Amino acid sequence: MPLEPDQLAEIEALRGETYQTLRATVPGMEKHLYTPLSVLDHGFVRVIDYMGDDSAITQAARVSYGKGTKSVQNDEGLIRYLMRHWHSTPFEMCEIKLHVKLPVFVARQWIRHRTANVNEYSARYSILDREFYIPAPNALAAQSVVNNQGRGEALSGEEAERVLRYLRDDAMRCYDHYEEMIGQGGQQGLARELARMNLPANIYTQWYWKVDLHNLFHFLRLRADAHAQYEIRVYADAICEVVRDWVPAAYGAFENYRMGGANLSATALDCIRRMLKGETVTQETSGMSKGEWREFEGLIG
Amino acid sequence: MPLEPDQLAEIEALRGETYQTLRATVPGMEKHLYTPLSVLDHGFVRVIDYMGDDSAITQAARVSYGKGTKSVQNDEGLIRYLMRHWHSTPFEMCEIKLHVKLPVFVARQWIRHRTANVNEYSARYSILDREFYIPAPNALAAQSVVNNQGRGEALSGEEAERVLRYLRDDAMRCYDHYEEMIGQGGQQGLARELARMNLPANIYTQWYWKVDLHNLFHFLRLRADAHAQYEIRVYADAICEVVRDWVPAAYGAFENYRMGGANLSATALDCIRRMLKGETVTQETSGMSKGEWREFEGLIG
Amino acid sequence: MPLEPDQLAEIEALRGETYQTLRATVPGMEKHLYTPLSVLDHGFVRVIDYMGDDSAITQAARVSYGKGTKSVQNDEGLIRYLMRHWHSTPFEMCEIKLHVKLPVFVARQWIRHRTANVNEYSARYSILDREFYIPAPNALAAQSVVNNQGRGEALSGEEAERVLRYLRDDAMRCYDHYEEMIGQGGQQGLARELARMNLPANIYTQWYWKVDLHNLFHFLRLRADAHAQYEIRVYADAICEVVRDWVPAAYGAFENYRMGGANLSATALDCIRRMLKGETVTQETSGMSKGEWREFEGLIG
Amino acid sequence: MPLEPDQLAEIEALRGETYQTLRATVPGMEKHLYTPLSVLDHGFVRVIDYMGDDSAITQAARVSYGKGTKSVQNDEGLIRYLMRHWHSTPFEMCEIKLHVKLPVFVARQWIRHRTANVNEYSARYSILDREFYIPAPNALAAQSVVNNQGRGEALSGEEAERVLRYLRDDAMRCYDHYEEMIGQGGQQGLARELARMNLPANIYTQWYWKVDLHNLFHFLRLRADAHAQYEIRVYADAICEVVRDWVPAAYGAFENYRMGGANLSATALDCIRRMLKGETVTQETSGMSKGEWREFEGLIG
Repeated sequence: MPLEPDQLAEIEALRGETYQTLRATVPGMEKHLYTPLSVLDHGFVRVIDYMGDDSAITQAARVSYGKGTKSVQNDEGLIRYLMRHWHSTPFEMCEIKLHVKLPVFVARQWIRHRTANVNEYSARYSILDREFYIPAPNALAAQSVVNNQGRGEALSGEEAERVLRYLRDDAMRCYDHYEEMIGQGGQQGLARELARMNLPANIYTQWYWKVDLHNLFHFLRLRADAHAQYEIRVYADAICEVVRDWVPAAYGAFENYRMGGANLSATALDCIRRMLKGETVTQETSGMSKGEWREFEGLIG
Repeated sequence: MPLEPDQLAEIEALRGETYQTLRATVPGMEKHLYTPLSVLDHGFVRVIDYMGDDSAITQAARVSYGKGTKSVQNDEGLIRYLMRHWHSTPFEMCEIKLHVKLPVFVARQWIRHRTANVNEYSARYSILDREFYIPAPNALAAQSVVNNQGRGEALSGEEAERVLRYLRDDAMRCYDHYEEMIGQGGQQGLARELARMNLPANIYTQWYWKVDLHNLFHFLRLRADAHAQYEIRVYADAICEVVRDWVPAAYGAFENYRMGGANLSATALDCIRRMLKGETVTQETSGMSKGEWREFEGLIG
Repeated sequence: MPLEPDQLAEIEALRGETYQTLRATVPGMEKHLYTPLSVLDHGFVRVIDYMGDDSAITQAARVSYGKGTKSVQNDEGLIRYLMRHWHSTPFEMCEIKLHVKLPVFVARQWIRHRTANVNEYSARYSILDREFYIPAPNALAAQSVVNNQGRGEALSGEEAERVLRYLRDDAMRCYDHYEEMIGQGGQQGLARELARMNLPANIYTQWYWKVDLHNLFHFLRLRADAHAQYEIRVYADAICEVVRDWVPAAYGAFENYRMGGANLSATALDCIRRMLKGETVTQETSGMSKGEWREFEGLIG
Repeated sequence: MPLEPDQLAEIEALRGETYQTLRATVPGMEKHLYTPLSVLDHGFVRVIDYMGDDSAITQAARVSYGKGTKSVQNDEGLIRYLMRHWHSTPFEMCEIKLHVKLPVFVARQWIRHRTANVNEYSARYSILDREFYIPAPNALAAQSVVNNQGRGEALSGEEAERVLRYLRDDAMRCYDHYEEMIGQGGQQGLARELARMNLPANIYTQWYWKVDLHNLFHFLRLRADAHAQYEIRVYADAICEVVRDWVPAAYGAFENYRMGGANLSATALDCIRRMLKGETVTQETSGMSKGEWREFEGLIG
């Protein structure tokens, strides 16, 4: 993800100007501000702004006039209580704004999270750069044989080489034709809004994305999950690192109750009760389907 | 948009089963149900379901127990009043569900309308069909020379031919490699969620899209507008025809106040007042920028 | 909840007109349509319209052209899978519209569920009826001594009588003054939008409320829960009965995974694993707070 | 709006701590932070936090890496362009968090704006204060005789006195009984969640309210409008003053295009064109209803 010199200069300029503020301020986030965190081969996540901190969550939950005289420990207990009991509105009181550069096929998954604000780089007005995501060898996964949606082992040898050649060559050829069609060399040229349709989905786009902490946690739970596609998961992982620095107590509760936790059905809870009483429960006696039972065993095994 | 025989059979089966209902029912919509309206070269819009009619709007506005004894004329007057005064919630009481087949680059614009429900065909699980949007000759527009976002005249001659050749050949080659990479022929094959990234943005996707009438009007105002990209406008136009059959009074008010209407600034209103008093107002004396003045002249000229 | 004769006549008129439709139709819902289900002393829930059925969920999940050839059993399995894996968008493809009459303090909780469409009876335009919620003796609960938010035993004897007297007398007096202030008897009268502020929060209001099934399930999970306030829970319970008749497979999955299920933290899952291996885990060794441990014991005990 | 000494101390403490930040910072907003602006007799609006400034709008519209080298004048031109053409997403990139104290009947209107985050003081957990909105004499308006929703002249003399007496006495009596019912004096007491229903709608509540600038503008357009109820308009007016200090260019565009502007129908635009050509247009020849024509004359007269 090598930024252009003028982009780096703009970022340095922003990091060079310090202001005085009375707002809730988090030193760990000030370090992140504006600096890109590399993701994939050309992508990044940059924190552009943030609002609130752990205290802003409890302050709103209490509808208090100030920070209150409650200790940090009390705050953490309240945050865990709110997370456990699905009191989501206090977490909505924190907000973050990110600048993200990402392949189009990742952007298409990401945008499905509707409760967020987005401004995307417009390929109707502007010309896209020649930057495409080409998977690293260990990310060149085969289709899973057990799961329609999953990945198996990485391809290797000739098959891997052929795949990489196709991805690279097709991207380059499509981009060459894109450039030629929009006709920078004196011709009139095809409208940009049309020419862009020749570009494959591994081309990079970028956007400003702003979201509140509750909805960000929802995004992270789904996208930092082991079942999410690798190419979006690495973005979610990068954002997790940022959130840990931003609201450590809330992130801790999120990790414990959401990321590391699980939703058990009434049937599953009943099986646990029976097992704790000494009964041997099998898939056949569990009342679960085979798929459910496999997931259940994975959780408690 | 030639549907496969089994798809046509499924649609015919749906149109063959009639039910009794007490719900608000609109004969004009019953005719539309399930049947695809062709859009672009391979796309369509199909009405899958609808809730409510013109009366449902006034019934909700009045929070009434039944249809009320008000005449149709009163209903229409109330609907116009609600539209004029931006009372949007009664229009939210009608809902429509569409099945849409559309190119990916159109889908990317469409999805920006967040207040809707969407289920898209998944290229993580499933294999996309070999169907790409190739513009008709008269839609092969040049980049506008006056407007970054606009289109000029249609390209012609050799340039047009070259563009069409690029679009077709690149689509076919990318799809050939997509098929080869997912390896239907006995090999293991690249994961579908990865292989899809080789496909250009003119490939067709499809989704179920459900939206309330207020948000649909917002979508139509922006996307059936002359400034919208042609390829999404034709979808909006098709939907306008459906809505006209569904809620004629509401659609009439929408056409008069939104599609055919305009938002004038305080400055523009002041210019109109001055002009009506006989003053000759020019861009220089108007208080408007050149761009604004041009738009203003377009409205009142 | 005695409706006025003209209201009953309007409802009967609606139930008397049957239409032919090609839309998905659910016999169990046709029985509910328009008829009020009594809730509390003067409230009700009436189904005004609905869109979709169990098949509409799987149809959208598969983005299919028709109902598909899949069996009902396959549909149910898919619905359970979608619910278990938090695939929420297919459930958004069903929509319901209710007419609800409810006390203002219940309406204030209800409206916090933002992803819904609402048209409320306007006390700016119209005059509210003299109808107030007065709790039945067994609902006249004392403040819980262990839980700030909870209820204890029902009050009885003189205290109960005094409370009921206050609630009744204050409501009647406030309403008398409301009526007098708006001055129906020839005087000019205080503006209705002002006079209404003299009315206590147990007065009844009513609204049209439209919501998709996913967001309705979210509402029901929180409001049909044992910790919800009794006065909103009875509305949620009434709606549960309707939903069971509407989408039985989806409701079954909801009951098993959401209502009867539980979200366990990483810590709780770890405790279960230790207990299943024979370890005796106590609150002290569990890593949970006392409150969490109490909830955990309630689940698995 | 006399705050308690401990509340004032909390606010002073917050205003006493200054932090260094790299985030976009607006001096005019730093002055507002935490300090309550009085509204009505006991209400207030306090700015708790803000994100972004005018530059944040154009930065997002351009998806730029820094502030860009564009001049302030260019920024203002772009902001006006975005506002004029309903490009709403860049305005969503600014966010504000307010602490508001307001009467319940105002809160009930306010909450209808769904695209915002809210944490309200809970009368299930906590005891409400004895604070009620009693209109000032000039706000004691009569019902309008021409408009169901409007206000006429202020009441005066005996009628005004009687109204004020009712409002005060009923509020005090209801609150006395509320206190008595929750039984602070050793008895068990009615559950708070029930007792609150005896309180009239002019009692004050409070909440934290967080919203993006686009949705705030929508709120202000409707609630700072001359047709909005006076008691919510004064809150909107107070917020307008804050927004003017926060994002002066965006607020200027909002004033010109939204607050001071108007939406004209196709019919109205046609009338203007005819009038500018010298035709005398009357209501009868205008194609408008009487109500529409009256509004039209008000705009251009």
